[in-house]
Amino acid sequence: MDIQNLLDDIVGAVQPHVGQGNVADYIPQLGAVDPHQFGISIATRDGDVYSSGDAHVPFSIQSISKVFALALVLAFDGDGIWKRVFREPSGNPFNSLIQLESEDGIPRNPFINAGAIVVSDRLLSVTGSAALAVRDLMRRETGNSTVAADHYVAASELRNSHRNASLAHFLASCGNLENPVEAVLESYVEQCALAMTCEDLALATRFLAANGVGADGTRLLSPAQTKRINAVMLTCGTYDAAGEFAYRVGLPGKSGVGGGIVAVVPNKCAISVWSPGLGRSGNSVAGVAALDEFTTRTGWSVF
Amino acid sequence: MDIQNLLDDIVGAVQPHVGQGNVADYIPQLGAVDPHQFGISIATRDGDVYSSGDAHVPFSIQSISKVFALALVLAFDGDGIWKRVFREPSGNPFNSLIQLESEDGIPRNPFINAGAIVVSDRLLSVTGSAALAVRDLMRRETGNSTVAADHYVAASELRNSHRNASLAHFLASCGNLENPVEAVLESYVEQCALAMTCEDLALATRFLAANGVGADGTRLLSPAQTKRINAVMLTCGTYDAAGEFAYRVGLPGKSGVGGGIVAVVPNKCAISVWSPGLGRSGNSVAGVAALDEFTTRTGWSVF
Amino acid sequence: MDIQNLLDDIVGAVQPHVGQGNVADYIPQLGAVDPHQFGISIATRDGDVYSSGDAHVPFSIQSISKVFALALVLAFDGDGIWKRVFREPSGNPFNSLIQLESEDGIPRNPFINAGAIVVSDRLLSVTGSAALAVRDLMRRETGNSTVAADHYVAASELRNSHRNASLAHFLASCGNLENPVEAVLESYVEQCALAMTCEDLALATRFLAANGVGADGTRLLSPAQTKRINAVMLTCGTYDAAGEFAYRVGLPGKSGVGGGIVAVVPNKCAISVWSPGLGRSGNSVAGVAALDEFTTRTGWSVF
Amino acid sequence: MDIQNLLDDIVGAVQPHVGQGNVADYIPQLGAVDPHQFGISIATRDGDVYSSGDAHVPFSIQSISKVFALALVLAFDGDGIWKRVFREPSGNPFNSLIQLESEDGIPRNPFINAGAIVVSDRLLSVTGSAALAVRDLMRRETGNSTVAADHYVAASELRNSHRNASLAHFLASCGNLENPVEAVLESYVEQCALAMTCEDLALATRFLAANGVGADGTRLLSPAQTKRINAVMLTCGTYDAAGEFAYRVGLPGKSGVGGGIVAVVPNKCAISVWSPGLGRSGNSVAGVAALDEFTTRTGWSVF
Repeated sequence: MDIQNLLDDIVGAVQPHVGQGNVADYIPQLGAVDPHQFGISIATRDGDVYSSGDAHVPFSIQSISKVFALALVLAFDGDGIWKRVFREPSGNPFNSLIQLESEDGIPRNPFINAGAIVVSDRLLSVTGSAALAVRDLMRRETGNSTVAADHYVAASELRNSHRNASLAHFLASCGNLENPVEAVLESYVEQCALAMTCEDLALATRFLAANGVGADGTRLLSPAQTKRINAVMLTCGTYDAAGEFAYRVGLPGKSGVGGGIVAVVPNKCAISVWSPGLGRSGNSVAGVAALDEFTTRTGWSVF
Repeated sequence: MDIQNLLDDIVGAVQPHVGQGNVADYIPQLGAVDPHQFGISIATRDGDVYSSGDAHVPFSIQSISKVFALALVLAFDGDGIWKRVFREPSGNPFNSLIQLESEDGIPRNPFINAGAIVVSDRLLSVTGSAALAVRDLMRRETGNSTVAADHYVAASELRNSHRNASLAHFLASCGNLENPVEAVLESYVEQCALAMTCEDLALATRFLAANGVGADGTRLLSPAQTKRINAVMLTCGTYDAAGEFAYRVGLPGKSGVGGGIVAVVPNKCAISVWSPGLGRSGNSVAGVAALDEFTTRTGWSVF
Repeated sequence: MDIQNLLDDIVGAVQPHVGQGNVADYIPQLGAVDPHQFGISIATRDGDVYSSGDAHVPFSIQSISKVFALALVLAFDGDGIWKRVFREPSGNPFNSLIQLESEDGIPRNPFINAGAIVVSDRLLSVTGSAALAVRDLMRRETGNSTVAADHYVAASELRNSHRNASLAHFLASCGNLENPVEAVLESYVEQCALAMTCEDLALATRFLAANGVGADGTRLLSPAQTKRINAVMLTCGTYDAAGEFAYRVGLPGKSGVGGGIVAVVPNKCAISVWSPGLGRSGNSVAGVAALDEFTTRTGWSVF
Repeated sequence: MDIQNLLDDIVGAVQPHVGQGNVADYIPQLGAVDPHQFGISIATRDGDVYSSGDAHVPFSIQSISKVFALALVLAFDGDGIWKRVFREPSGNPFNSLIQLESEDGIPRNPFINAGAIVVSDRLLSVTGSAALAVRDLMRRETGNSTVAADHYVAASELRNSHRNASLAHFLASCGNLENPVEAVLESYVEQCALAMTCEDLALATRFLAANGVGADGTRLLSPAQTKRINAVMLTCGTYDAAGEFAYRVGLPGKSGVGGGIVAVVPNKCAISVWSPGLGRSGNSVAGVAALDEFTTRTGWSVF
């Protein structure tokens, strides 16, 4: 298969979707992004990288960071986190308090905001800084030492974080936070504010397509842990549209409101797409269309 | 009717219930209160006061303060508050987030915590200090210039206020707070931390049995506003047991986790009872029994 | 007070509201009613009756029948029914399954549909026919032997009763029905299909303003049972607007989708109003306005 | 790989789990099954079959039938069904009404009861009998013309179907049933009452591991439709434990309260396990353990 041709074809095929949907605008930094951009990159298990479109434009990875925070907690701290967060799909919006209350402060999974806050809290306890730990993982896997958080985004996010503060205080009221609410929230928004390109993200995600082995050949996660992250991504990675994503794309994937999505073809490659326009469920419209196109053309769905 | 005899009889009749239930223990100051206490006071519309039992022991009025904060907002600011809080019973625990989320940040009524926080927020905007405004109303109506907040209770409450902070941040995320979350929470816990006796509370509540006219003969509320507060007390004043309270007692009433309850016999008198042991719904066991006894003996139910 | 003048005045005052709202149209018989009608009647404790407007036009009493079915179960069977139905406001629409499921098949109160179905089920067990028992009570209290169910309404209702069938089967699945689902539903819709005039309804409701004593001077309910029905009406009688109704009208009341409302001034009189146009909560727009006018003019609110 | 050895090993390895959990006992026919049984079968894409343990004992397939009803509706009727049922995980028990009500009668997915009732309703419209259509598919794929419903189970199920009747009437009230409630329920319980062995079920499921091609080489479903059923199984196939199942087993699977589970290794084989003891989520304890063992030993997880 000529992957470069494939990516170029996909860039052409998704053009009608680029610009569709709405750019996230709850903070000005996200709202100002030009929606008419689309990028795609693939990092193969063997170490090759292919890119097309706007694959070298940095964007805010937002919720995609949740995958890496979870990987680090599993790597540094083992399976204890599963006592503080479930692994089930939620059937509710990503920032809902309803299920959290009816289940006594144990979030449904690590990819809804409440669950990701618990994971960041643990990462903060274990490493001293969730945001720096995630950033350093990104730098190591990409070989790009300029990967960094956009502090304007983080500061703006923090000023607009009442909903996350509500979740965090609720978790604290249930005894499910180890650190002060303010420290956890700061660490969490900083981690979400990392700015990366499609190519960066494909490289950073590659270890999930490589049984847990990182770019330098050392093992980050056991094969079992790797599979488990992929399983959680497939069932819970795309907000309240995980079933639809599994149905259309058929790959483990994680999206962010910045318009990025990473997906994993186990044992083959990691894919990253980006286009800022979001559909009703908060996933990039052109991004999902591109991944649909990808699995249709390659047959590389897990099903 | 010989009211003094009646109160003395009630003190005797409820003895089997005194000490039943559980004292609130989420902060140490409440948990340390001796449960074997019971007091009752009546302040008539005409200005007489009767007391029996431990009616001169100060206790933490807690949620009872919500009635007075609401009265002040209506007095100073008119009916605008009803755009920010509904008047319907909630069918859910007093500190629940579920209904709040499903109704987009408009609390069901001013006596669940979320609604009371909105009322305190408005009172803060209008007066500069919700807690001092409520305290001054209490002093004026009782003629007791020593009524004050217990600052140990308030400080302890503030350290244990994650659940209220969660509610307040949620309200803020929906645009339903005017002041910073921290300022509102401080004002709110201070108002709840007022320490008062049964006799104080009966006197302070008397204007609700007097068509809105205060102790010095000046009008605090219009007759219509007064009736409306009584209506909200009857349908929403005793947590998730308002139906049961209406059924057993048949009077507008408001309870607090300190074990106090105030009730109103329209055009006749205000009653205050106190006993620290709480039943499952958070209302004083002996207090409800005493009010039940009171309406059974006097026939002064509104029904 | 000249009650006849008062009623005539109210008929004039509410004219701007007559025709407002929407006539219930889930069955054709209700949908065909002319919305430009309004009637009001008062039956005093002493036996006098006053009427104005369209007070002699029969209409479908629908949910108003729930009050009388409850009265009969309490009269014939005592307090056992309260093990099968709660007395708390619901905070949810009248035909909701949500709270029923989360509370294991015990309806929140006897005036939401699920609770009324449980009451009719018990009345069916005790009397052999809930519908005939309610009808006979109506005939006895009104002295009008022509009171009867509209069988076209009942048949039409039964054909459109999937939502009630859903509730009834749910109750059965929780072990909270004694009779077959079909028999209970038939009895229930028949009871709701009674056609009565405002004057009939005011007379039939009078015993709730007379401490439980019926038209012929015999006792139907104890004073305590009577007060309790009034308490349930005030907290739960007007669908999800009970708080609003208590606030505006300040009387125990029960509404139906036929546009009727009955209300009780304890120890004074029963009032009945009717106008087919319903507001968003399912209560007659002009009917609520008329009762608001009535309590404002007379001061006969319970608060 | 020596599959026969593998299956024999798994039978030995899971013995500690056989008999664990609780046998479904809501109908006597299920409650009477001996829990100390375990069977496993594999049908490869190439046509080979391997079995071990109690793989030739018929059991009640129950909810496993939902996969085949869905396959037939897609085969006969195309994608129209997705207008009447979503494809998202539910986050609620399999027979919950709550989400159904809050989403206006569109079930979350075709594998919760409400969704399966909608699918059976459509299959009834298209074929004249959902139960016979599923039975005939089973006979054709297994080559076993004795596959049939256990009519005692079906009759008993129908007598105990108040919860499903509640769901069906609710769907009807929302306009989401085409046939009379009674006809749909009969068809649905009949389809669930099919009695089959592990070996039968592995053979019947094989087309989902063969891109949609049936036992006789004719195409039942398109490759895309096949993948989509597998995706729905992975995200929604094991009641409220789909995330856990994806995490532990990592294969599309569908369980039933009879203790059976089918799973699919895309392009390789179908697996069927059976042991009557159910865990808290309603999935066979020994069955899930056996599939976990299977994917651990073979590495044939999709992740």
